[in-house]
Amino acid sequence: MTESLQNLGVNFQLGRTKTVRRAYGIDEIALVPGSRTVDPEITRTTWEIGGFERDIPIIASAMDGVVDVNMAVSLSNMGSLGVLNLEGVQTRYEDPEPVLNKITSTGKEEFVPLMQEIYKQPIKEELILKRIQEIKERGGIAAVSGTPLAAIKFGNKIKDFGADLFFLQATVVSTEHIGKKGNQNLDLFHLCQNIGIPVAVGNCVTYEVSLELMRAGAAAIMVGIGPGAACTSRGVLGVGVPQATAISDCAAARNDYQKETGKYVPIIADGGIITGGDICKCIACGADSVMIGSPIARSKEAPGKGFHWGMATPSPVLPRGTRIKVGTTGSLKSILLGPAILDDGTHNLLGAIKTSMGTLGAIDLKEMQKVEVVIAPSLLTEGKVYQKAQQLGMGK
Amino acid sequence: MTESLQNLGVNFQLGRTKTVRRAYGIDEIALVPGSRTVDPEITRTTWEIGGFERDIPIIASAMDGVVDVNMAVSLSNMGSLGVLNLEGVQTRYEDPEPVLNKITSTGKEEFVPLMQEIYKQPIKEELILKRIQEIKERGGIAAVSGTPLAAIKFGNKIKDFGADLFFLQATVVSTEHIGKKGNQNLDLFHLCQNIGIPVAVGNCVTYEVSLELMRAGAAAIMVGIGPGAACTSRGVLGVGVPQATAISDCAAARNDYQKETGKYVPIIADGGIITGGDICKCIACGADSVMIGSPIARSKEAPGKGFHWGMATPSPVLPRGTRIKVGTTGSLKSILLGPAILDDGTHNLLGAIKTSMGTLGAIDLKEMQKVEVVIAPSLLTEGKVYQKAQQLGMGK
Amino acid sequence: MTESLQNLGVNFQLGRTKTVRRAYGIDEIALVPGSRTVDPEITRTTWEIGGFERDIPIIASAMDGVVDVNMAVSLSNMGSLGVLNLEGVQTRYEDPEPVLNKITSTGKEEFVPLMQEIYKQPIKEELILKRIQEIKERGGIAAVSGTPLAAIKFGNKIKDFGADLFFLQATVVSTEHIGKKGNQNLDLFHLCQNIGIPVAVGNCVTYEVSLELMRAGAAAIMVGIGPGAACTSRGVLGVGVPQATAISDCAAARNDYQKETGKYVPIIADGGIITGGDICKCIACGADSVMIGSPIARSKEAPGKGFHWGMATPSPVLPRGTRIKVGTTGSLKSILLGPAILDDGTHNLLGAIKTSMGTLGAIDLKEMQKVEVVIAPSLLTEGKVYQKAQQLGMGK
Amino acid sequence: MTESLQNLGVNFQLGRTKTVRRAYGIDEIALVPGSRTVDPEITRTTWEIGGFERDIPIIASAMDGVVDVNMAVSLSNMGSLGVLNLEGVQTRYEDPEPVLNKITSTGKEEFVPLMQEIYKQPIKEELILKRIQEIKERGGIAAVSGTPLAAIKFGNKIKDFGADLFFLQATVVSTEHIGKKGNQNLDLFHLCQNIGIPVAVGNCVTYEVSLELMRAGAAAIMVGIGPGAACTSRGVLGVGVPQATAISDCAAARNDYQKETGKYVPIIADGGIITGGDICKCIACGADSVMIGSPIARSKEAPGKGFHWGMATPSPVLPRGTRIKVGTTGSLKSILLGPAILDDGTHNLLGAIKTSMGTLGAIDLKEMQKVEVVIAPSLLTEGKVYQKAQQLGMGK
Repeated sequence: MTESLQNLGVNFQLGRTKTVRRAYGIDEIALVPGSRTVDPEITRTTWEIGGFERDIPIIASAMDGVVDVNMAVSLSNMGSLGVLNLEGVQTRYEDPEPVLNKITSTGKEEFVPLMQEIYKQPIKEELILKRIQEIKERGGIAAVSGTPLAAIKFGNKIKDFGADLFFLQATVVSTEHIGKKGNQNLDLFHLCQNIGIPVAVGNCVTYEVSLELMRAGAAAIMVGIGPGAACTSRGVLGVGVPQATAISDCAAARNDYQKETGKYVPIIADGGIITGGDICKCIACGADSVMIGSPIARSKEAPGKGFHWGMATPSPVLPRGTRIKVGTTGSLKSILLGPAILDDGTHNLLGAIKTSMGTLGAIDLKEMQKVEVVIAPSLLTEGKVYQKAQQLGMGK
Repeated sequence: MTESLQNLGVNFQLGRTKTVRRAYGIDEIALVPGSRTVDPEITRTTWEIGGFERDIPIIASAMDGVVDVNMAVSLSNMGSLGVLNLEGVQTRYEDPEPVLNKITSTGKEEFVPLMQEIYKQPIKEELILKRIQEIKERGGIAAVSGTPLAAIKFGNKIKDFGADLFFLQATVVSTEHIGKKGNQNLDLFHLCQNIGIPVAVGNCVTYEVSLELMRAGAAAIMVGIGPGAACTSRGVLGVGVPQATAISDCAAARNDYQKETGKYVPIIADGGIITGGDICKCIACGADSVMIGSPIARSKEAPGKGFHWGMATPSPVLPRGTRIKVGTTGSLKSILLGPAILDDGTHNLLGAIKTSMGTLGAIDLKEMQKVEVVIAPSLLTEGKVYQKAQQLGMGK
Repeated sequence: MTESLQNLGVNFQLGRTKTVRRAYGIDEIALVPGSRTVDPEITRTTWEIGGFERDIPIIASAMDGVVDVNMAVSLSNMGSLGVLNLEGVQTRYEDPEPVLNKITSTGKEEFVPLMQEIYKQPIKEELILKRIQEIKERGGIAAVSGTPLAAIKFGNKIKDFGADLFFLQATVVSTEHIGKKGNQNLDLFHLCQNIGIPVAVGNCVTYEVSLELMRAGAAAIMVGIGPGAACTSRGVLGVGVPQATAISDCAAARNDYQKETGKYVPIIADGGIITGGDICKCIACGADSVMIGSPIARSKEAPGKGFHWGMATPSPVLPRGTRIKVGTTGSLKSILLGPAILDDGTHNLLGAIKTSMGTLGAIDLKEMQKVEVVIAPSLLTEGKVYQKAQQLGMGK
Repeated sequence: MTESLQNLGVNFQLGRTKTVRRAYGIDEIALVPGSRTVDPEITRTTWEIGGFERDIPIIASAMDGVVDVNMAVSLSNMGSLGVLNLEGVQTRYEDPEPVLNKITSTGKEEFVPLMQEIYKQPIKEELILKRIQEIKERGGIAAVSGTPLAAIKFGNKIKDFGADLFFLQATVVSTEHIGKKGNQNLDLFHLCQNIGIPVAVGNCVTYEVSLELMRAGAAAIMVGIGPGAACTSRGVLGVGVPQATAISDCAAARNDYQKETGKYVPIIADGGIITGGDICKCIACGADSVMIGSPIARSKEAPGKGFHWGMATPSPVLPRGTRIKVGTTGSLKSILLGPAILDDGTHNLLGAIKTSMGTLGAIDLKEMQKVEVVIAPSLLTEGKVYQKAQQLGMGK
């Protein structure tokens, strides 16, 4: 058991055998304005990952409906970043277009079996090379993601293929993995030292694991396991930590690691982020950047054509997550940089961050990480109630 | 970071990097009757702002769908107060009628672009003069509102035009603003000293900012930033403080400032107030008065003709808030003074205040500010669930 | 301000000006079985009010849709008690039948004006006499209720008319009332000493007021002001105390008063009680009996014919509450004594109390008052969600 | 009053007469990953009850819609366990098929009367014998359940009939029962010593009762009384303890009893469990196994044919619970062992347990009982909101 959550703050007795901590979600907090305000136009939102300075503290998730080569390039050029999934349709199919069309046009009942079918097709090394080259040729940052399995299999070639950043992404990452005899386990320290490019590692939720990952050489830490109350990991596995607490704990590891070594390893909040307000709250809890899927999937450039689905969906034995119709609400530019067409907090995300920073008197992200936070009644915001109602088929 | 919320009452550990305070909303509290009751008819609800004594502790918000010249005059005459927005349709259009008709008849999709279009029309100084004169000629109190931008531009003429009170209203007001080089920033102290009429300033949510605003010369403080859980500021910017806590903190500043200087600066609770019960709770938390929009927008005299929308909606880059169909439920008189036709707490608001005061044994507003409050389960009240369900298109 | 809620248990800082207590509602608690169980058939549910021993700790509310002469007699005979409202249709109309028919057949919009019209008819002394005699002639206990106004007007004749018990019922009762000059105020002490029959007094929610009422001579205390989160008093006036806390506090006054004087004054929980589980919880919090309206209004014998409405509805200036269609679900006997036809906890209320007592090992009500209580997640029970959804027109 | 919940952890003042503990439900907690992960394939989920080692920590409830002879055999063979109800349709009717058909095809209104009618048929000793023999002949473990009444009547023959395990199951079990004079009460100690086969006893929720039951000779303890917020016992009787706290408390009794005697008595969490995540949370709170009904009722082999109903339903005087249409979603194998067809956490329950254990770094169930738990916002998971909405007729 990690001891990070024990003896910290207010503990409660769950019952005679368990002492527990109350963890807080993003929906339960709000940010408190102070005595100073700043003109949004002079706020600075730059941050750095693996030597790449980015103007927008937003990364598009490595999901098939969110990032393809086009999106990776566009996001790079706008000052953001998009991560290409090395184990999705882009690297299994020479032409992913018809496959994506099938995914987005199939009926609800046939979705899981179809996904399981589609993902039986093996990953092709030449397609990994091809996708990376396409991004680089068009001037984008080639950020690619893989699970520990992919890291074992392709890790030594990714740099040679031209990739700039590698996102090692497991549902839950650990520094110690007990596998079956005969199976090869990933040595994180070895990977980070030898892959030749910066490695962002995740997802984790605790101080201890964050610190261990940094010591193993991670260039960034992704934070978020079952972050939301209605999250798949929470329902299927019971696993998760509400995101506000998880970010704050992992940010503490970043701060301590910097004191120890002088190195600053950014924290990327990942999961359950829908609005500009969500992003602002994540940063205020200590994040340097966020990773988002569904808000980007709503752009007209997104490969998911208005649909969004998770990476756990094609699991042959325990499929999780669902394809959600998120709709197409505007261009990638209107979503990231505005001007907003919608007034629900899902457009002009950078504008929202800058307006929030101005309102809170934060000139840069480091100051934004220090704004005051209050616990506020945990009602779902209107957008989330609506989204949930829609998913449940209860809405209009 | 303001330190007002730190080390006060019960603090919680959000995570290793943040200590947070639990803040409470209006929906989470209830008022406790004591040993004394008072006949509602002998309760006194008078309060004073900038030398004007008012019988009703309710101000109608400076919103285009709520207050026009007619409403300002009617509200004045009833013992209440209405604030005219100096930056809305009334001062951009000689005849605002057709513009208001467009706003209330356009489709949901076209609303934001229409608003952005309408607000491109510049504010005309002669219309500011005209509106103020119209109010004065008909015997009303000319209370007008403007953002810091308007205060810089028109501040020196407002008194000459005949205005009685100026409401300086920003989403978030601060005493220190860091702007772009070359831009002119508002000097609050200078404005309050030189404008020649009393200035109500807001919105703020903390003890420190309230105190600073009073020291700068504010004649009243408006309290409320993202006060409700489903509030726009909360969703889009992540910013807000639940209103019960915000009022209590700012009221403490008022009390301390009075001890310090002998001057009493009223606290005006602004935002998320729908029913008589909400008003009573705000006063019990320490407010002297409330500012309300949607309940007044439901009067048949309201310029919004049954619709209500916020001031942030026309933002060209980050529109927030939505036009809500609130309906027309009765005359301004039935809403403010009764008799009530509806039984849901939105009619006869003064009657509700007086009945509540009688029930709680409070003879005047100062006693009402001292009644006992309990934290009660935070279910939405029926009216609010219904209103929200309607907004989401889930109701009948 | 009462000091009863201060410095007791855990206090929270609402803000800088207010220390508040968390109060708990009936929906937030659950009862914990101990090491002993009892056969429900040998549990005893008797209690006493003003010398009348009753087998069922349930009183039917003095509401026009709940109790008429017939109901009062039937309830008495079953071992329960029904209170006749001296200021309702029964004492304003010689033949209330057509009036009740109008109330239950009118449209939603016309309801409040109709009620206001109907209640303009004056109360007739001869009808008070007639109703009491009708109950007595048929062998019932004549329990009648009135507001302080009725107590002043009819108090000296009620005993002579033959009434057995008087329920003095105000929304909020106090021992000190500040009225208009010239108006006659009720002297509670005088009323209790001189009316000649036992007087139950309410409603109150605090230790201090309960104690004062007992000292003034109350024969029973009714507890409940804005007890539920969706309650009218809470919405319109902001006033209320969650019921579990209110009962426990008032029960403490009863215990202390008994220690002081040897007299035992029963506590009657009144408001928001829908199911057998609600009744059990009220007793476990310290109540001796409960007063219920809507569950009884659902009996086919009820004068409301499937509708239920409150006494504040006809207020000419501030009508509150609504007529709710509760439906007719069975005979009074099936609701009170079973067997149950419905399985949702609204039938066989006595059976539910006895089964609960058996489960919890409580042989009589005094033991039931001592069972262990836990704070449990405050979701609405299914029945209440459904009821609320129906009221909002969102259900089937 | 049990003293187990007093003076433990954080206590709250409900009111002046009651100190209460906050108890937590399964929906309010989440499990925290640590520094280690384990390959799900090498996790071990075996546990033991009464000398029978089982590979799957899941028992199918003794309910008529869940377990018949076929199901008992299939569950045994898969490594799970099914308990046959000795007081249901299987032992009242030679051929239960037409009876089950009636139950699942009748209208909603006629359901309770039909059930009451069906259960008037007496239990036949020869059918008890027959069902047990059928299970044994086909190689299953014959686990049978009965209430205390059945234990008194049939207890001395159950072993001779060939049963392997007896589940003594009351809504609430106690070691001291006060019955009517002349009635025979069950002596638990005597039953456990003399029945000749291991006896699992329940349901209970406290440390003290668990300990007493173990001392009386129970071979396993079933934990769960009104475990969920929307639970029947909670609504009708007010009785219940949120399940996470109940499990933890009873697990403490198991641990203490083992220290005292060296004997390990497994804790079976029973009630309100729907998803794999729920099962994982119960184990993390200290359970050794869970008892589930509705997830198994959704298998195509289940006797309920897509319907599920409780044992309290046929009560002639206080029917509780309802028949719920749970639907048929797949084979028993897909539900227990996968592969999953659905992605909502109700298929491949063993896979979910193993994946969760791997994620949390737990090699076996004893380690899983020690994983870290946090209190997380208590929103219903999507599946539960949906299920509830459906039950209420509010969904699609």
